[in-house]
Amino acid sequence: MGKRKNVLFIMCDQLRYDYLSCAGHPTLSTPNIDSLAARGVRFTNCYVQSTVCGPSRMSAYTGRYMRSHGSTQNGIPLRVGEPTLGDHLREIDVRCALIGKTHMVADQEGMERLGIDPDSIIGVHVAQCGFEPYERDDGLHPSSDYDADPAYDAYLREHGFDADNPWEYWANSGEGDDGENFNGWLLTHADKAARIPEEHSETPYMTRRAMRFIEEAEAKGQNWCAHISYIKPHWPYIVPAPYHAMYSSADVKPPVRSEAERIHPHPVLKAFQAERFSVNFSRDEVREKVIPAYMGLIKQIDDQMGVLFKFLEERSLFEDTLIVFTSDHGDYLGDHWLGEKYMFHDVSVKVPMIVYDPSPKADATRGTVNDSLVEMIDMAPTFLEHLGGKAKPHVLEGRSVLPLVRGENPQNWRSFAVSEYDYAGERARLALDLPVSECRLFMITDGRFKLVTGPEVPPMLFDLAGDPDELVDRGRDPAMAYVVNRLRAALEHWMATPANRITVSDDWVTTSDEKFAHFDPLIEPGVLIGYWDEAELAEQQEARRHWMASKT
Amino acid sequence: MGKRKNVLFIMCDQLRYDYLSCAGHPTLSTPNIDSLAARGVRFTNCYVQSTVCGPSRMSAYTGRYMRSHGSTQNGIPLRVGEPTLGDHLREIDVRCALIGKTHMVADQEGMERLGIDPDSIIGVHVAQCGFEPYERDDGLHPSSDYDADPAYDAYLREHGFDADNPWEYWANSGEGDDGENFNGWLLTHADKAARIPEEHSETPYMTRRAMRFIEEAEAKGQNWCAHISYIKPHWPYIVPAPYHAMYSSADVKPPVRSEAERIHPHPVLKAFQAERFSVNFSRDEVREKVIPAYMGLIKQIDDQMGVLFKFLEERSLFEDTLIVFTSDHGDYLGDHWLGEKYMFHDVSVKVPMIVYDPSPKADATRGTVNDSLVEMIDMAPTFLEHLGGKAKPHVLEGRSVLPLVRGENPQNWRSFAVSEYDYAGERARLALDLPVSECRLFMITDGRFKLVTGPEVPPMLFDLAGDPDELVDRGRDPAMAYVVNRLRAALEHWMATPANRITVSDDWVTTSDEKFAHFDPLIEPGVLIGYWDEAELAEQQEARRHWMASKT
Repeated sequence: MGKRKNVLFIMCDQLRYDYLSCAGHPTLSTPNIDSLAARGVRFTNCYVQSTVCGPSRMSAYTGRYMRSHGSTQNGIPLRVGEPTLGDHLREIDVRCALIGKTHMVADQEGMERLGIDPDSIIGVHVAQCGFEPYERDDGLHPSSDYDADPAYDAYLREHGFDADNPWEYWANSGEGDDGENFNGWLLTHADKAARIPEEHSETPYMTRRAMRFIEEAEAKGQNWCAHISYIKPHWPYIVPAPYHAMYSSADVKPPVRSEAERIHPHPVLKAFQAERFSVNFSRDEVREKVIPAYMGLIKQIDDQMGVLFKFLEERSLFEDTLIVFTSDHGDYLGDHWLGEKYMFHDVSVKVPMIVYDPSPKADATRGTVNDSLVEMIDMAPTFLEHLGGKAKPHVLEGRSVLPLVRGENPQNWRSFAVSEYDYAGERARLALDLPVSECRLFMITDGRFKLVTGPEVPPMLFDLAGDPDELVDRGRDPAMAYVVNRLRAALEHWMATPANRITVSDDWVTTSDEKFAHFDPLIEPGVLIGYWDEAELAEQQEARRHWMASKT
Repeated sequence: MGKRKNVLFIMCDQLRYDYLSCAGHPTLSTPNIDSLAARGVRFTNCYVQSTVCGPSRMSAYTGRYMRSHGSTQNGIPLRVGEPTLGDHLREIDVRCALIGKTHMVADQEGMERLGIDPDSIIGVHVAQCGFEPYERDDGLHPSSDYDADPAYDAYLREHGFDADNPWEYWANSGEGDDGENFNGWLLTHADKAARIPEEHSETPYMTRRAMRFIEEAEAKGQNWCAHISYIKPHWPYIVPAPYHAMYSSADVKPPVRSEAERIHPHPVLKAFQAERFSVNFSRDEVREKVIPAYMGLIKQIDDQMGVLFKFLEERSLFEDTLIVFTSDHGDYLGDHWLGEKYMFHDVSVKVPMIVYDPSPKADATRGTVNDSLVEMIDMAPTFLEHLGGKAKPHVLEGRSVLPLVRGENPQNWRSFAVSEYDYAGERARLALDLPVSECRLFMITDGRFKLVTGPEVPPMLFDLAGDPDELVDRGRDPAMAYVVNRLRAALEHWMATPANRITVSDDWVTTSDEKFAHFDPLIEPGVLIGYWDEAELAEQQEARRHWMASKT
């Protein structure tokens, strides 16, 4: 074992790529996140593999596309046996801990079929998407199956915030001027302060839990990978003082949309434009209430990054810790007449991605911006490489970004990024009257154009250079057919080449390569295929002896 | 529990679809297999999902395409957690036993990762592809990892056939006129009798083992699914007396091939034409020795079918047992200048498929021939339906053929059959100088045309109506581009719609369908997405109350 190495994998939830000052936001200042970008590389074209939390995160935690891990919608268990980042890291003696959200649902049926005790260590790893659940908290406590009784609720109670549901009643409700309790789920209350002192709200709580984990792991001399997974700035859009009042309607950028987007829209887009969240976010009144709170939630995260980075600095952890700051997907916030995420405009499918590599090899790129096509599934192989593990391209469908971060300008970096979305569980399926199996959208972009396609629906195409705001869908424009066809062919190739052979490595497959040139390797175990007679066999056996002799 | 029901799933290995008298072979008489066809339905267009044993069988045993189960070549373990026929049948209290070959390799790494004890009952099921291994025997004992010490070897020793490797030394060696022992792997000895009395050879041995299993299960009053899996007529091409002398070179059909097939062949085809087995099977001398033995092996199986069917008849088991007779793939036997299998001409990828359904509903079709496109993965859902299980389209990618067998002319029967082959482990990869990940071929046929395509190689196209012998590859013929494009589009759709979401059913996905029309179902667990204010929420809550009231 060489020098100890660690990974800090920081993920926000529903944070748009463009809501950071380093990414050009005009009034939202995020100096701490920017400081990480100054020490590392900021990727401007990082795509998540699905536009909703669950599938996107399962891709992040398995390093595999949605087509491969099969958890295609929120709430769909990750199949038992699907290899995770945690599995790969445990093999090389790295502790892989979760602090926060995963959106994981355990495959209880599969675990039962395989006789895996949910209370065993292995059972917990399987149920927790490969992580050691140091602190599991998916947010959304009112109802969620994910964490019925999170530690954060107990924490609130301990600190005097008692209620049946302290998360909802205190931390995610708004306080009126006369102490009234306003429902924090409702967008009209987004301008109110959360009914909790800032220090007890989720973001600083989770930061402290992460620091506690790191202290413990450091004290034990363990290599660690800490996944700090904030549930913010995801809704409920409500933030404690003083963050609730830091931004106003003056900070709200105009929506990126055009009337043309509502005339003959693509049928799936049309279905999502009709959803309540889209209709409401298309109203200025809503955006002006919500976006300042959204910005406040981000500002709070940035301040916590300051706390966290100071903690790391004090312990010299920047010396050996690879740090990633990212998000699981974006938020339309009314752009394109949409709310939430789901569709594939950049504000939804592109995420912030800052990678700090402690290696001196990365010194030359510090503070630079890189526009290579990066995917969230690249993180698992990046961590594996940093931590000294062997690459696993037969399982991990992403690629380590360390060559990019180290300015190595790697040959054959990917030409396309892909994302997927399964809308079978949404109203859109009913609107389009499609069978469950057909409700699949695929996005592929080469950075210049973006194609969105799927069974039974026409293609959407955006010209990212000529129309960077993605206001004109040219999918049905005959003049663009050649682009559609080119991207479709690339997607077809992607579809044809999944990493589905996960039980043996590429080395296993190529094990006989050298022998092939000299003799028939199957004669070694005595499987004689297609030999006519003893002479033919003897010839091969002689060739083998000759080759064996040459090896000694 | 209604009336007891059983399944008998009989699989041969490497049996061509056209080597049965019911399928039109001119001199090979298979009256017993024909009798099953007379009682059931013979499908003339049944395609296996891969053209080599392992992947084809993993598809048969999981009901899933190779893209989904991921065991893409012989020797590649089936990933732990991949649901099997045995898993589905155990859920409905049916004993699912193996008697013979599966070509399964256990995913030991995966089992270890999940803490599954290989000696536990679950561990054995996982390691044995979901089967209870009543008798596991993959043939190829000399070397194989599959069954180091099969019961058949012990059986041979008990009967006086002792040797280090009795399987090879006795059952699969040839006896010379003066008692010499000839290597049964070598094709030149295919005309000799195996050195074992017929009754002790593998085919009757396995038949007896199957009957023993059935007797046991019947005695216990169990529902059962017995997979009788003969390793013949697969090589070693050697058969005991009298079968070794039943056929001669006069019974050998001329090879189906043309000189044109060797001029500018498709690059993958060319690589396989260069393999030893292809070069040798392209020689008349080889075909004339081997094919009579191949026919003898089939004749022996047919005689054993007579024994088996008589056994079933005596126990009235035809009354409640669904019986399938099929094979895992074919054998080129020199057609198209090829030996073995691998490629996608019908003689390789199409298999015999006879389905006997005991139900009176199938009476009208008995003895008929059906040319619908059937896939081997249809068997698992067929068995599940016969045995009273719930259909699982989210896992099982095939379709029950019972509607076809019952003459129901089902709506929307499949329009295409698909098969896959991964040649990354073959010399062909080196010949084509391709990365491991690119060596994938896909076959799709609509019954009229057959397209074979894959990354980095040109398409192959056969006109099955105009050129039923598949002698002319029209894949690069511009006049056929429209056909290539049509089949490619169908393949793209197939690729886009795998059954990858295996942890929840379609019912789960559509669970809110009825509610969607009346109110926002997410308000039930209290997840309020996109609501502006209390009034909006109250409206939905009222709508829900109204709907609830209407349900009572």
